[in-house]
Amino acid sequence: MTHPDLYAQLRLFLDGNEITEPSPDLLTDQRRRFTSSPDIVLQPRSVESVQNIMRFCFKHKIPVTPQGGNTGLCGAAVAENGVLLNLSKLNRIREINLADNSITVDAGAVLQNVQQAAAEAGRLFPLSLASQGSCEIGGNIACNAGGLNVLRYGTMRDLVLGLETVLPDGSLVSHLHPLHKNTTGYDLRHLFIGSEGTLGVITGASLKLFALPQTTTTAWVGLPDIESAVKLLTLIQGHFAERLCSFELISRFALELSSGFSNIQKPVEAEWHILLELTDSVPDPELADRLAEFLFERGLENSVLAQSEQERNDLWALRENISASQRSLGTSIKHDIALPIARVAAFVRRCAPALKARFADIEIVCFGHLGDGSLHYNTFLPEIMSNDVYEYEDIINTIVYENVLQDNGTIAAEHGIGTIKKHWLPRVRTESELTLMRAVKAHLDPYNIMNPGKLLP
Amino acid sequence: MTHPDLYAQLRLFLDGNEITEPSPDLLTDQRRRFTSSPDIVLQPRSVESVQNIMRFCFKHKIPVTPQGGNTGLCGAAVAENGVLLNLSKLNRIREINLADNSITVDAGAVLQNVQQAAAEAGRLFPLSLASQGSCEIGGNIACNAGGLNVLRYGTMRDLVLGLETVLPDGSLVSHLHPLHKNTTGYDLRHLFIGSEGTLGVITGASLKLFALPQTTTTAWVGLPDIESAVKLLTLIQGHFAERLCSFELISRFALELSSGFSNIQKPVEAEWHILLELTDSVPDPELADRLAEFLFERGLENSVLAQSEQERNDLWALRENISASQRSLGTSIKHDIALPIARVAAFVRRCAPALKARFADIEIVCFGHLGDGSLHYNTFLPEIMSNDVYEYEDIINTIVYENVLQDNGTIAAEHGIGTIKKHWLPRVRTESELTLMRAVKAHLDPYNIMNPGKLLP
Ligand SMILES: Cc1cc2nc3c(=O)[nH]c(=O)nc-3n(C[C@H](O)[C@H](O)[C@H](O)COP(=O)(O)OP(=O)(O)OC[C@H]3O[C@@H](n4cnc5c(N)ncnc54)[C@H](O)[C@@H]3O)c2cc1C
Ligand SMILES: Cc1cc2nc3c(=O)[nH]c(=O)nc-3n(C[C@H](O)[C@H](O)[C@H](O)COP(=O)(O)OP(=O)(O)OC[C@H]3O[C@@H](n4cnc5c(N)ncnc54)[C@H](O)[C@@H]3O)c2cc1C
Repeated sequence: MTHPDLYAQLRLFLDGNEITEPSPDLLTDQRRRFTSSPDIVLQPRSVESVQNIMRFCFKHKIPVTPQGGNTGLCGAAVAENGVLLNLSKLNRIREINLADNSITVDAGAVLQNVQQAAAEAGRLFPLSLASQGSCEIGGNIACNAGGLNVLRYGTMRDLVLGLETVLPDGSLVSHLHPLHKNTTGYDLRHLFIGSEGTLGVITGASLKLFALPQTTTTAWVGLPDIESAVKLLTLIQGHFAERLCSFELISRFALELSSGFSNIQKPVEAEWHILLELTDSVPDPELADRLAEFLFERGLENSVLAQSEQERNDLWALRENISASQRSLGTSIKHDIALPIARVAAFVRRCAPALKARFADIEIVCFGHLGDGSLHYNTFLPEIMSNDVYEYEDIINTIVYENVLQDNGTIAAEHGIGTIKKHWLPRVRTESELTLMRAVKAHLDPYNIMNPGKLLP
Repeated sequence: MTHPDLYAQLRLFLDGNEITEPSPDLLTDQRRRFTSSPDIVLQPRSVESVQNIMRFCFKHKIPVTPQGGNTGLCGAAVAENGVLLNLSKLNRIREINLADNSITVDAGAVLQNVQQAAAEAGRLFPLSLASQGSCEIGGNIACNAGGLNVLRYGTMRDLVLGLETVLPDGSLVSHLHPLHKNTTGYDLRHLFIGSEGTLGVITGASLKLFALPQTTTTAWVGLPDIESAVKLLTLIQGHFAERLCSFELISRFALELSSGFSNIQKPVEAEWHILLELTDSVPDPELADRLAEFLFERGLENSVLAQSEQERNDLWALRENISASQRSLGTSIKHDIALPIARVAAFVRRCAPALKARFADIEIVCFGHLGDGSLHYNTFLPEIMSNDVYEYEDIINTIVYENVLQDNGTIAAEHGIGTIKKHWLPRVRTESELTLMRAVKAHLDPYNIMNPGKLLP
């Protein structure tokens, strides 16, 4: 839409390296559902360059869509036009500070590289997602990513000590010094965390580090129902407290798919499965025995303890391959939901029949992070393998989300709102909240150039 | 300033119990520095009543100052006129949910009562301040309180799962269901946390609970300098990781005062002292021995391990009585600062001589939560025992804060900004941040009735 001359001007002050040929990786999202059509793709290599680009785009009212690893699942890093601003080349590890247990990185640093840099310094950066080989810190912050260790370490929001951000007008707001206590006026850092690129460009972050686990014990437990799983969670937290690091729920059907796909035997037979892991940052040779005893004493004998690193890897592969294995069922309509843990069982009991009443042969792959109440609730219509299934998205979402709301849950746990859920926002935020959000957006971004069309309905 | 007829109208729709005789406890702050002169003092007993009051005050543009336990140290709960809205009668424990490890309470619940309710349910609510017998959850949230256990459990900000808030126009925003993952648009909860009553009235909160400690080991270590203390912190975190719960720094002078005041012998002689505590939520009879061994192996023999609950209490009394003991020095000019932990030593080394160059006989009582980088840095001018010392506040603050800023620290770690530091805000937040804060404030509170004159310069 923008006059091509403008882009010629933009090129003038950019280093040639920063202008990129649009590659399919950057243009199409992971689920092959959305495709970008930007006027130009930029990969800035410095914070100053991001500032220059934003100043220019602000002046000329050119839309800018920030992008990290492009692994998001809500169509939030898709550029309809204007500038696709990919941060992947701004990817240094800036500093590790052991006294403050912090690591400061560029926004384009890949999550796995940050984990590695921390490990090399003898520390843990605990955020852990299946997409960690390509998602980036800026994207993790913009989506408030969650993953496997939230139970113990929190979501990305809890791991950010300070942010460096370029506002839509190009001005820089930088608070990267590791301050563990700081209350000087309204907390704007948390406005940016989870804002999905609509308020500004994150260029750097200072993140919390933790001690590396020295002891790990992994178990798989088969249970008749989710109620029993929640009971086990409360018991095990009462007993092992913060040593409980992961507590993953897997349905019989999800396990069957994954077991077939991975060629790994099912550890036990049951309706519902829990994969749980205890860790301790201090060596404790007895932890595994105590877990075995704990399970035995409570009659949880339909269970398996990993006896070797290989067995542990197999158990985790069964959990991690669910996403890949379900592709055989066709395109899914996914739900990234969370509920109060005490309500998860009631929700699952009610939602499946409600869906089946409308679509008799619907298939549901249900698994997730029960330890923090979040579920991946993926649905498939066997007759429709392709993206045509999205025709039914609204009907299916309505059934699922109405049931989620009935149990005081949320329609977006860890993937964000993006384009696909923004019309649901008014159901989970009040009118006064939405007008405040719009006021914040309008103040920072008066021309609506930052990732327009995302998040806010 | 407001026409008395208006208050007659307000009385009409309030329960008589909610109108309170202004008692000195509510009108004068803890440090006897500020005195309120409200037109009326209200103590609402329900959320609906808070809404009614706010609707009325919004319509008639009457200033409202929210107040909890009135233990704040920055003059932030002082009402010059209008309504002093004391929340102390809205003080129920609403719900404890063990599956979600959460407790939901009214904003006026006293911190200590919340700790007790959690303990009775077999859980820990970890926020711990010397003022816990009278400060309230709403005040803790509004100030983002810190205290002794931040190292392990975070500040109040990290402990809030959900908030219930009445906005200036009387509308209610309620998110009290315990959701451990939820990313549905801009996070407004964090705007309210730390906003010191300037954006709305907090009426309820859902808070995180943790496992109760089953093992506690307390040690006192004498050290020659702060550099050694920071080294010890890094070593001990590398070794005992999250078991380290408190790591308190005390100067020789602070210990002398407190020891005299408490009639408890100094545990060791040294320039600087560390009071540290390890806890474990699992019983561990060997933890104390391992700590002793750790200290011995590193040559830290100028130290004492508490051998009984009495000895532990004595060590903590020495730490906790510093505030009371320093009153013998007269009125202090206090500084609630935080620095990157790696910079604390440099700051202390530079700041004391700078102060002494200007005030030859100034006395400095320096202690604090070194484990999270925050310091209480209190200064006394021996010639001036009374509040007349505040004449020198600006000169002293300038020396201290300039040194804090030079080391990338903050002028407000855990007490807030209130009235006493607001002219310093432009030094720690950028112009674009301040204009965003003002825009948020103006949007929610267009007539500037919520705690006017506080926080924002
Ligand atoms: C196989 C797979 C498994 C996954 N598992 C999980 C999981 O367990 N938990 C979980 O939470 N997520 C998961 N995800 C989703 C996704 O990986 C995360 O949301 C991730 O945080 C996105 O990071 P990204 O760098 O790829 O962001 P992108 O997809 O590039 O962008 C996502 C959003 O962030 C914005 N953004 C990106 N960078 C910046 C920046 N520097 N400044 C401002 N805004 C920016 C974009 O505009 C967009 O709105 C998974 C995805 C896949 C494909
Ligand atoms: C002896 C002593 C020791 C202390 N130690 C510590 C310490 O270690 N760490 C620490 O962080 N603080 C400490 N403090 C400071 C103080 O106790 C805390 O800031 C506490 O959180 C204030 O709570 P309060 O209920 O007394 O709030 P108040 O003093 O009544 O109010 C403080 C601020 O919060 C606002 N506010 C109160 N209630 C609400 C509400 N419901 N909604 C909206 N706004 C509200 C007020 O308007 C005001 O701006 C100490 C104070 C004393 C006297």
